[in-house]
Amino acid sequence: MGGASSIHAVILAGGKGTRFWPKSRARRPKQLLPIVSERTMVQETVERLAPLVSAEHIWVVTGTDHAEELRDQLPDVPDEQIVVEPVGRNTAPAIALATNLIARRDPDAAMIVLPADHHIRYADRFRDTLDRALALAASGDLLVTIGIEPTAPESGYGYIERGDEIAPGANRVRRFIEKPDRSRAEELVRGGGCLWNSGIFVWKVGAISRALARHLPEIARALDDVDPSDAQSLAAAYAAIPEQSIDYGVLEKADNVAVVGGEFGWDDIGSWTALMRLGPADADGNVIRGRVLALSSHGNLVAADNRLVALVGVEGLVVIDTEDAVLVCSADRVQDVKQIIDELQRRGWKEHL
Amino acid sequence: MGGASSIHAVILAGGKGTRFWPKSRARRPKQLLPIVSERTMVQETVERLAPLVSAEHIWVVTGTDHAEELRDQLPDVPDEQIVVEPVGRNTAPAIALATNLIARRDPDAAMIVLPADHHIRYADRFRDTLDRALALAASGDLLVTIGIEPTAPESGYGYIERGDEIAPGANRVRRFIEKPDRSRAEELVRGGGCLWNSGIFVWKVGAISRALARHLPEIARALDDVDPSDAQSLAAAYAAIPEQSIDYGVLEKADNVAVVGGEFGWDDIGSWTALMRLGPADADGNVIRGRVLALSSHGNLVAADNRLVALVGVEGLVVIDTEDAVLVCSADRVQDVKQIIDELQRRGWKEHL
Repeated sequence: MGGASSIHAVILAGGKGTRFWPKSRARRPKQLLPIVSERTMVQETVERLAPLVSAEHIWVVTGTDHAEELRDQLPDVPDEQIVVEPVGRNTAPAIALATNLIARRDPDAAMIVLPADHHIRYADRFRDTLDRALALAASGDLLVTIGIEPTAPESGYGYIERGDEIAPGANRVRRFIEKPDRSRAEELVRGGGCLWNSGIFVWKVGAISRALARHLPEIARALDDVDPSDAQSLAAAYAAIPEQSIDYGVLEKADNVAVVGGEFGWDDIGSWTALMRLGPADADGNVIRGRVLALSSHGNLVAADNRLVALVGVEGLVVIDTEDAVLVCSADRVQDVKQIIDELQRRGWKEHL
Repeated sequence: MGGASSIHAVILAGGKGTRFWPKSRARRPKQLLPIVSERTMVQETVERLAPLVSAEHIWVVTGTDHAEELRDQLPDVPDEQIVVEPVGRNTAPAIALATNLIARRDPDAAMIVLPADHHIRYADRFRDTLDRALALAASGDLLVTIGIEPTAPESGYGYIERGDEIAPGANRVRRFIEKPDRSRAEELVRGGGCLWNSGIFVWKVGAISRALARHLPEIARALDDVDPSDAQSLAAAYAAIPEQSIDYGVLEKADNVAVVGGEFGWDDIGSWTALMRLGPADADGNVIRGRVLALSSHGNLVAADNRLVALVGVEGLVVIDTEDAVLVCSADRVQDVKQIIDELQRRGWKEHL
């Protein structure tokens, strides 16, 4: 288990989810939607932590647009622990703010930081991995990242290169590698020494506080004495804060970073095609939800929650039907779905945003 | 002009239009829908005839399911001239029934027989062609078919081979050729002597009556004394009548058949891809109706009358959005759309039929 101190979890729920249009909208990004199962992604994230972190120790950092919906979806999380940033400034300020809040409650707490919109197939293995990371973090000053054993040479993820082993399945981090191109990704995976960077972190409040003060002093100072329930003081603090990710701003600079490898069926659900991978697929390789009729059609993803969708002689398409919009997208172009948002804005078709 | 006798038009409106699902439904086949323009196809058919045939001389033969809708769509056509067959038996019985009705009114009338669901781009040229056909029919006992100068080696149409010229632009018919395969169609078009069979016919009441009596005596006799306003007598007559097309049952056997060639932008709108031909297309070759956003997408047909349809990176698709169903079909498979009807029936999803 993760040591004697209390365990808090900080769920980063600020994402816009433009890659899941037309399901995701400005007011309903991916983390607030039931993308994979019948429950929303943030609900699944909280539920998955439940045996390890109770609702009273869950913190969710989000934007003004989504706070109310999050309170509705997570009734067991105390209201004041839905932390609302006045404006998004990437992960470092969000984590710094949550760290300060937890430190006031319990300066010796351990923290798990994780995104609100990842899919994890094996929740028990996930918690086992967190346990190992908590044990490692509890033993000292380490900033522990969770790395994923790669199952393919993905170019959409960052990589972590393992250094010396410091415990079974845990290593010093030699370096972080930004999203590589395809051939570089193949090299990294072939070598065997690299893990995917999951964006999930485990550390003691003290360890991350010191790291923030050292590597991002401007952000740490700006947020040190802020009362997050005072919207005006929070807005003033954020106005002075630059955008900064915790990876680039702290972890890539710190020398006390470790990585714990895990295999728990992790997927960041970066686009519609993630659902093609997750399946289940029918005999023709179609992954289907809702009322769908597929004739001579193979390898398509269809979500027909509103209407009947009929396919005839098509392959490799993503077809998403919603109340006011239908997406028909080639599976190899799902990354371009976010361009639809720009185009809708340009045309002034705001009701579909 | 078409001689001194009055001119009647018989519009055959019995089609089921299964190839236009999901727009066309059992209760709303293609001829009752605004497929090409804002007006329904049967409304366009009547309008196109107007300068030549007044509404009092229009007859529409249809099935029980569609009579009421036709009366609504064609308020100027007298009620009793919406002729309702108790059951569809192909074109020969429909024409025989209408012929009998017109003969009672005016035994010397000329008749134009035409489908309710064809598109004609140049209505004036169409009427000029009908005028020539009427002149030819008026001069004697001829059964005149309207042939279309082929613009491509279509395998979806029947062909008419021209024989001796009997008037400028008018010939004896040497023979009818059933829908050929592609290479045979190329031969037929290359030779120059063949026309597409449009399914549009012009003749005097007497000429077609005699031809029916001679070549289809069973049908002629069964319908001779029927009162079409007496549903019971009509049902009894139809019960005894075999399915028969006018082409196969009469025209291919008769020796007094002529063809008048025309070029008036004719299209039988046999499937969704017909609308791709008719355009207009945008710079990427997409033919679009309604609110459509097409990114990196080429050569698609989209009808978005209900919702926004967004395309990303797709080519050669037919996407038809309706209130309760969306079709996504490869353009080269539009002939298979009718299989959806079978599949819907098999699954018992009757609300989409």
